[in-house]
Amino acid sequence: MAVGPATLPQLHPVNGFRLGIASAGIKKPGRRDVVLMEMAEGSAVAGVFTLNAFCAAPVRVCKQHLAAAPARYLLVNTGNANAGTGEQGMVDAMACCQAVAERCEVPVEAVLPFSTGVIGEPLPVGKIVDVLGAAKTDLSEDNWESAAWGIMTTDTRPKATSEQISYQGKIITLTGISKGSGMIMPNMATMLGYVATDAEVPQALLQQWLSNVADRSFNRITVDGDTSTNDSCMLVATGASGVCIDGSDYELAALFTEALERVMLNLAQAIVRDGEGATKFVEVCVESAGTSQEALDVAYTIAHSPLVKTALFASDPNWGRILACVGRAGIDNLDLDALQIYLNDVCIVENGGRAASYTEEAGQAVMDGEEVLIRVVLNRGQVIERVWTTDLSHDYVSINADYRS
Amino acid sequence: MAVGPATLPQLHPVNGFRLGIASAGIKKPGRRDVVLMEMAEGSAVAGVFTLNAFCAAPVRVCKQHLAAAPARYLLVNTGNANAGTGEQGMVDAMACCQAVAERCEVPVEAVLPFSTGVIGEPLPVGKIVDVLGAAKTDLSEDNWESAAWGIMTTDTRPKATSEQISYQGKIITLTGISKGSGMIMPNMATMLGYVATDAEVPQALLQQWLSNVADRSFNRITVDGDTSTNDSCMLVATGASGVCIDGSDYELAALFTEALERVMLNLAQAIVRDGEGATKFVEVCVESAGTSQEALDVAYTIAHSPLVKTALFASDPNWGRILACVGRAGIDNLDLDALQIYLNDVCIVENGGRAASYTEEAGQAVMDGEEVLIRVVLNRGQVIERVWTTDLSHDYVSINADYRS
Repeated sequence: MAVGPATLPQLHPVNGFRLGIASAGIKKPGRRDVVLMEMAEGSAVAGVFTLNAFCAAPVRVCKQHLAAAPARYLLVNTGNANAGTGEQGMVDAMACCQAVAERCEVPVEAVLPFSTGVIGEPLPVGKIVDVLGAAKTDLSEDNWESAAWGIMTTDTRPKATSEQISYQGKIITLTGISKGSGMIMPNMATMLGYVATDAEVPQALLQQWLSNVADRSFNRITVDGDTSTNDSCMLVATGASGVCIDGSDYELAALFTEALERVMLNLAQAIVRDGEGATKFVEVCVESAGTSQEALDVAYTIAHSPLVKTALFASDPNWGRILACVGRAGIDNLDLDALQIYLNDVCIVENGGRAASYTEEAGQAVMDGEEVLIRVVLNRGQVIERVWTTDLSHDYVSINADYRS
Repeated sequence: MAVGPATLPQLHPVNGFRLGIASAGIKKPGRRDVVLMEMAEGSAVAGVFTLNAFCAAPVRVCKQHLAAAPARYLLVNTGNANAGTGEQGMVDAMACCQAVAERCEVPVEAVLPFSTGVIGEPLPVGKIVDVLGAAKTDLSEDNWESAAWGIMTTDTRPKATSEQISYQGKIITLTGISKGSGMIMPNMATMLGYVATDAEVPQALLQQWLSNVADRSFNRITVDGDTSTNDSCMLVATGASGVCIDGSDYELAALFTEALERVMLNLAQAIVRDGEGATKFVEVCVESAGTSQEALDVAYTIAHSPLVKTALFASDPNWGRILACVGRAGIDNLDLDALQIYLNDVCIVENGGRAASYTEEAGQAVMDGEEVLIRVVLNRGQVIERVWTTDLSHDYVSINADYRS
């Protein structure tokens, strides 16, 4: 029930970044559920994490380790989020890091843990530790697609993308994977995302770019408005390409950050396209707003409305529900007569009511498509914001009534 | 699919308040869809209305008329909300008021219009005006139950309640009706609610009491988080009982306002019990919060979470989803180790994780019930807030994917 083509593009290996996959049988026997990622010595590593106050044990350990020492290994398990697990969760996350540290001969602080899956169950440390040898043996620069499968939970398809940019005869590669389809309203990061590049980027700049781009990609998607306890997005720069991007060459920095934004936007949108029960991929674009906050208030009010989302599921051009959302978004002194609302390029609302030019046939033609743009023109200022979301279908209810996530 | 008993209690007539019902065939032939209510001369009338900026034409006319002259008639139609209809909507609402004014020989400002139903369609003024004679002929103090049927849209059952209080040998009656099951997150009022009493209450005090009580009843319910364009709640005091409640007798005022709160809470909760697709009636109670706002932030985060609502539908004690909501509610400096979460009286979360005493069987026993209390004890202060909501079921999706509301 995902929206858009399922095939992955060619995934270019990133020099200095290897991935190994193993099967620990955490939730289902035989499922690939443990992924180990190794970064060459000297790699810069940046991360953004959930703002949920109940952030999971691995997120807390991850932040501590990232601050303490250069990271060398990322360990991901699915099937168990190690969230809501109190002090035992911290002990368990550290035990996994310690096992990687011993096997790979690095300090424990060089290992960053990530978990995703059911909340509140104890992490099966033994099962994970038992397959670390297999994951290490499997380490390869060519394993991006397997790793994309290995980090999935309720996802119905793997999510991965890759870009190469060339600059003065040298090639820079960016490749990334992500997972997530429910509990998706990232706040500073998505469920799980990993992007690596062989560019050399100073740590502080890498973190700044990751934060900026995450704000325009992972932090602009929502499936159900539920911010997860485990959201994490990591950006790794191995430097193996020999190209250093330190911001002093403005053209190169722009080339790189634009590629980074395309990669992260692709991964973020892939999560929406595979949103639980999704039959539509929807962009909500709010234009000529006075501030970014008011644009986002309108956009998220629409994107989270169960009535708008069920109308999308029904392919019903029920523009009254969109109008009601704009009205309840809490915008001060909103001039109803000055704003317009469009479905793709069909104007549905102007002068405080249904557009004179609107016909049900034109609205229906837009809603029949798999991809829908809802555009609100506030005519109050210069700011534009976009968010991406899905419809609300019977499958969403079935998935979340049946699955203990 | 509504929750709780369907039978209405005895509805005591209110002296000085008559109701007449007619069938205009606005949406379905034969359906009772026009209700006229007549208030005795000298009645005090108070109202609270939607805060949706796109408030409907009848709401705008209603506010103007209420400020201009003593109200004598309330005219309600279902099947069409006269919202998102621009200037024509105002003309249409006024035309209906004018027709009542002529027929009943009162100034046009003495007539208050209310509409509910599909947004964005022109109001069929002719159909409504044609049956005003029949509605007027039908006026009777015994018509509360018929009126409760007459204001329904997607409601599966009528909502009405009645109380009598006695004070120094005199009887005061309060009787009310309400409607609504979708687009329910009232903001200062519910979809439609009408309460009448034969007490005599000065206008200013009546308005103050209505606002206060609406804040603790209609403004604490949510089905889908969508605030309607047409929410209105009216309180009428005819004075026909001969008992004047002007606030000078504290005991009498307390007796009356407590009865008023029970009546309005009953009507508000009846809307939740009949929420679209509802299979559960859920109270979310947040205790020992520092402020009312933080209590409401936590309560509504839980009440609006599609993941919590689908878990309720599945009768799944998936406490991790509740914990994740508390964590993302945006409370500053939340001490996770200090708070507790309960399902009815079963403690599910303490010390930052699953309660030691928790068993899946105990959680399951609570979730198997039709009525569930989710109680969050923040241990930060003295404030308590309650909101009432429903689960999210397949029927919710079906109703809203099939019905153009």
